[in-house]
Amino acid sequence: FAALLSQLCQCTAESNPLLFDLQALSASSCLTGTRDYSPKQMAIRERVFTAIINCFKRHGAEVIDTPVFELKETLTGKYGEDSKLIYDLKDQGGELLSLRYDLTVPFARYLAMNKITNIKRYHIAKVYRRDNPAMTRGRYREFYQCDFDIAGQFDPMIPDAECLKIVHEILSDLQLGDFLIKVNDRRILDGMFAVCGVPDSKFRTICSSVDKLDKVPWEEVKNEMVGEKGLSPEAADRIGEYVQLHGGLDLIEQLLQDPKLSQNKLAKEGLGDMKLLFEYLTLFGITGKISFDLSLARGLDYYTGVIYEAVLLQQQNDHVEDPVSVGSVAGGGRYDGLVGMFDPKGRKVPCVGVSIGIERIFSILEQRVEASEEKIRTTETQVLVASAQKKLLEERLKLISELWDAGIKAEILYKKNPKLLNQLQYCEETGIPLVAIVGEQELKDGVVKLRDVATREEVNIRRENLIEEIRMRTSQL
Amino acid sequence: FAALLSQLCQCTAESNPLLFDLQALSASSCLTGTRDYSPKQMAIRERVFTAIINCFKRHGAEVIDTPVFELKETLTGKYGEDSKLIYDLKDQGGELLSLRYDLTVPFARYLAMNKITNIKRYHIAKVYRRDNPAMTRGRYREFYQCDFDIAGQFDPMIPDAECLKIVHEILSDLQLGDFLIKVNDRRILDGMFAVCGVPDSKFRTICSSVDKLDKVPWEEVKNEMVGEKGLSPEAADRIGEYVQLHGGLDLIEQLLQDPKLSQNKLAKEGLGDMKLLFEYLTLFGITGKISFDLSLARGLDYYTGVIYEAVLLQQQNDHVEDPVSVGSVAGGGRYDGLVGMFDPKGRKVPCVGVSIGIERIFSILEQRVEASEEKIRTTETQVLVASAQKKLLEERLKLISELWDAGIKAEILYKKNPKLLNQLQYCEETGIPLVAIVGEQELKDGVVKLRDVATREEVNIRRENLIEEIRMRTSQL
Repeated sequence: FAALLSQLCQCTAESNPLLFDLQALSASSCLTGTRDYSPKQMAIRERVFTAIINCFKRHGAEVIDTPVFELKETLTGKYGEDSKLIYDLKDQGGELLSLRYDLTVPFARYLAMNKITNIKRYHIAKVYRRDNPAMTRGRYREFYQCDFDIAGQFDPMIPDAECLKIVHEILSDLQLGDFLIKVNDRRILDGMFAVCGVPDSKFRTICSSVDKLDKVPWEEVKNEMVGEKGLSPEAADRIGEYVQLHGGLDLIEQLLQDPKLSQNKLAKEGLGDMKLLFEYLTLFGITGKISFDLSLARGLDYYTGVIYEAVLLQQQNDHVEDPVSVGSVAGGGRYDGLVGMFDPKGRKVPCVGVSIGIERIFSILEQRVEASEEKIRTTETQVLVASAQKKLLEERLKLISELWDAGIKAEILYKKNPKLLNQLQYCEETGIPLVAIVGEQELKDGVVKLRDVATREEVNIRRENLIEEIRMRTSQL
Repeated sequence: FAALLSQLCQCTAESNPLLFDLQALSASSCLTGTRDYSPKQMAIRERVFTAIINCFKRHGAEVIDTPVFELKETLTGKYGEDSKLIYDLKDQGGELLSLRYDLTVPFARYLAMNKITNIKRYHIAKVYRRDNPAMTRGRYREFYQCDFDIAGQFDPMIPDAECLKIVHEILSDLQLGDFLIKVNDRRILDGMFAVCGVPDSKFRTICSSVDKLDKVPWEEVKNEMVGEKGLSPEAADRIGEYVQLHGGLDLIEQLLQDPKLSQNKLAKEGLGDMKLLFEYLTLFGITGKISFDLSLARGLDYYTGVIYEAVLLQQQNDHVEDPVSVGSVAGGGRYDGLVGMFDPKGRKVPCVGVSIGIERIFSILEQRVEASEEKIRTTETQVLVASAQKKLLEERLKLISELWDAGIKAEILYKKNPKLLNQLQYCEETGIPLVAIVGEQELKDGVVKLRDVATREEVNIRRENLIEEIRMRTSQL
């Protein structure tokens, strides 16, 4: 997911019109790379969370939570080159602590500690990455991840296919526009590295180089492989041919026939499972948005099998070219070895999962709300308890107390003698649909004047019927 | 709120039967003083949050969120003697950061930074306190606060009364048993200190001593005042007389006539407002659970007016004595100076708020669930898609995909050929009410066998009617 995030914000911020005044957003916060959420932003955030949680629950997930910090040693050795981005707490005596870097490692620690070998859970929480300030172009140091994972020993590719179905459902549901889910497998990558002549010891570091292909051109990646990492130019060129490939079942079949790859045990296993995966995805009817892409590598060390990453696409200025990626919004894969790293006896629990990255999705939806001038309510208040004359504070307090106790969402202005006009204006501004007005005459008559803010119609309601009337009038809102 | 929390966990853990295997709870976590939440615990937690959020929304609150860390300087000088409990992040270059200690200071920072002078908001999030490990008897270092605050210049005591109404509603709603809300006012305390002969410079530190009265006997508190803090024994004795007092409107009237207190401007102001507060609370019908208590002091520096704290009560072994406090679950007060500390021009925004402490409430409800053997579902799955024969994985995948796309919450077992018995057992264990069974015959007939797990009744449903039937059968669950 590190790769996802680095991409999530670095990529095309200057060049792309869809993107995002991320700097302006983070200006509304106290710290570089963090943000406050205003009530309006929270309303948008809640919509996104609701869509995501609904999907996770639709797939039968339980929910867990873990602390924001972990023992430093829990995080050590799990993230490869990205480990330098981990936030440590100051040593003030006691254990050495770090802020969680993702939700996957705490999940694996939780499974091992509680000896859980079988669970399907989601977890939505903030994670922390100490980004290089020089790279901080809209890259958050605190951001949400929405993770869904399936742990347990199961028949191949069934849970893996469900994870991709979930990404497909969420991105469709949120209506973020066109998207593509790239899929690959670490075993195919490793097999490919082997047949291209990469020494075993260089697999992970060459994998990191390949991972940069969505941000920089092949020539640069090749230079890194050859110049920095000491790979032979021939081996790099052979990799270069493979990583251009992307397709579907046809490409899988073709590679299963590839004279070199088909001789490699790992690659063959990976390709066999990839074929199975595509069969399941066909049953789910979602292969149209899924691409088997040999350039997908992902940054994290812990993946062991299938890996995937979802990107949003955008048509470039009516050109005939392919749509371009405007950034990654989800990623994940299979990590069968991670839980075993936390078990004293090394017992493995196979896991596969997906992580939805929320910040970019927020930005898109925020922009859309701004553009549409849609008015978003930030409260759910059904009725304002108002008075037409002075000296009725006590009557207002008595009435609102009755409404609260009946479960009605109600407000008053915190003034002894507010003007009726100000009370009505408050409703207009905040979207409160009803006003319950008490006055001398109403009190005498045992009624309350109920005003519809939109239509300005007023009608006297007997006090004992008021709660029922408010419920009825606001039930269809 | 520091005082609340210190009380929340230190107090009577050994002596009280209601209390709580907090050690056992924290054993399920990785770090002293933190905890993981299992799916079952999350289900209980969600119930509590739902009750609290419903109440906050009923009172018209918006919601905000702020980062988990703040600039260290933001937190400095706000918490008095408790500042030593703040978690700092390691200096890894960049700004000096600390984990938030409560939600009040970040709220004040947010208001000042965004020049907001008028808002009613809630905020539910974790806060962090670096407790002395020697004191860690069930005291969490990471815990939730649920805060509701009203900021703005309003007529006196109307928002303050609403905060108390909210505490009353939430504690009633959660059915935690009997409770008492203690109320006092910093101005009354300061006036009392003045007329007792406490020098101005010692007000805050003597206030801290008084704050310990709910945990230690008066003699100890007096020793601290005289021995450690250099107060004269006579002044301490005069304080000792006042802090025994608690009551309602009658006590307020009595103190308004008190020859010494009534001469003190601050005390008189405080008592006048306290009278007004009790008038409003009478209109709300909640004075039965509210006690004006001169021993309530609260630890934090930033309070400037009314302060309050809610404690759960428990009848002691059928004795005729008064019920005893088993711990504080909410607290708050007025802090009119805090926002001004963050404004370059010192512009004040008066605020009053309340913070609900969740950990103790969780523990009580968890214990209750354990005792009742109530079975808590941790998923919402409506139907398991099962097969009666082998080789039907593909049919199961096709069917479940249809159900998911229609918004039905559905699961399958991740096996190619699961036994029907295992599939039915899974439903029993996890509380899934329905099973949709596909078999060769059903496929031929264009039906699905729908089984009610509880009654074991099975009926064939035409495939095109399945979704409607599942919706109907699970809508009243």
